[in-house]
Amino acid sequence: MTAQPPPQRWKFTVEYNGTNFSGWQRQADDIPTIQAEIEAAIFRFCGQNITIHVAGRTDAGVHARGQVFHANLPTRNITPFECAKAITANLQAPDIAILNAQPVDNNFHARFSAIHKHYQYRILRRMAPPTIERNLVWHFRRDLDVAAMQSAAQHLLGQHDFTTFRDSECQAKSPIKTLDKLGITQQNDEIIFDIEGRSFLHHQVRNIVGTLTLVGDGKWHPDDIKTALAACDRTQGGPTAPASGLYLMRVDY
Amino acid sequence: MTAQPPPQRWKFTVEYNGTNFSGWQRQADDIPTIQAEIEAAIFRFCGQNITIHVAGRTDAGVHARGQVFHANLPTRNITPFECAKAITANLQAPDIAILNAQPVDNNFHARFSAIHKHYQYRILRRMAPPTIERNLVWHFRRDLDVAAMQSAAQHLLGQHDFTTFRDSECQAKSPIKTLDKLGITQQNDEIIFDIEGRSFLHHQVRNIVGTLTLVGDGKWHPDDIKTALAACDRTQGGPTAPASGLYLMRVDY
Repeated sequence: MTAQPPPQRWKFTVEYNGTNFSGWQRQADDIPTIQAEIEAAIFRFCGQNITIHVAGRTDAGVHARGQVFHANLPTRNITPFECAKAITANLQAPDIAILNAQPVDNNFHARFSAIHKHYQYRILRRMAPPTIERNLVWHFRRDLDVAAMQSAAQHLLGQHDFTTFRDSECQAKSPIKTLDKLGITQQNDEIIFDIEGRSFLHHQVRNIVGTLTLVGDGKWHPDDIKTALAACDRTQGGPTAPASGLYLMRVDY
Repeated sequence: MTAQPPPQRWKFTVEYNGTNFSGWQRQADDIPTIQAEIEAAIFRFCGQNITIHVAGRTDAGVHARGQVFHANLPTRNITPFECAKAITANLQAPDIAILNAQPVDNNFHARFSAIHKHYQYRILRRMAPPTIERNLVWHFRRDLDVAAMQSAAQHLLGQHDFTTFRDSECQAKSPIKTLDKLGITQQNDEIIFDIEGRSFLHHQVRNIVGTLTLVGDGKWHPDDIKTALAACDRTQGGPTAPASGLYLMRVDY
């Protein structure tokens, strides 16, 4: 018997439509999750139960255009192209696709090595319900003042204690985070939020968007965001925006 | 008994995801079509069987962001907002939504009064299959040379006999049409075709896009489009691009 070669660590970039999944994280056997689907595809591909490690878990209904995970695969002598194609071919869920595979060294960790994340949030602002974009946006019927939201967003940039925008179930050690970008643009019927930073608290992006819509809707003055942030109290923030509008766009290393 | 007031003609703008329909036109009772769904909603709303008239029928799987139809409704004393909302509320298909309703005079005809149409065609160009855009694009795995397709497109602008790009079942009296715009742009992984003109032959947009991909793929020289057009022969054109990438964006009057 020859010795087995050591496994190779791979970095994968993955896209998914999160509508039909109970989020990223594997749960009980009969609950559809993105992690469970990908681990099942890897099992079909290489015959081993291998745990994958994600850059940032996403909640039920949240989408990704550039989620990242890593896994140690026994397969060597395979090109990145073949590796991505083999796993995609073994996925039984058409809502998930591997965009890219890359061999990395064993120091790489999808979560701990990440230095920057980009989220996007899409609001469809009109009276009629979405059809083509159903489950892919937050449908908002009332007018939204984009300039007022842009003004309010300035108060959130930089390093702050984001307790006001932190979910009660958040497990992060510290509520202090740094927001590098919060851009808000209008494109036809849609209002797009681009939010970037090194890392985020649980529900931070959805709580920021939900609170900014209070400003856009005229219920809050832009400066009320500053007061809410300073309160360090979740009850002083606005509602959590729905999962359907949120996209993890990119993770940088 | 008082005399019934004459019906009011209304112009409607409608959006739909065409994936789950056998096209616009009403067929046998058990076949899902967009016309049948809207006529059923109007029946629920006003209790009468009313035939609606469309600007341009779309095929199975084709989408619309700004399709137009007209109908004569018995309902008077209703605002445009209430009219659009009432029909949308009575639609049982979440893939269809009325965007706008407008009272018009009896000379208006959704098809015959139209003076300009804008179609868009979306290609997702990458190896991995679409997930978020599933059924909403043409998935194209090979490289496409956008500059070569832009060069080829110039040969199609203006007034021509478009027999080469006309479906054999087309019922138009003349194959002579005028193409006012054929723009091709790349946006991240997508290649977007914007095609405008007064009116189009059956499958004309999809046949033009399918033929241009032969140029983008390197199988044809850009000038081969000119030769194919001049042949006035469908067998000299390229394949018909799939329905899933096509959107009727706007109809002008």
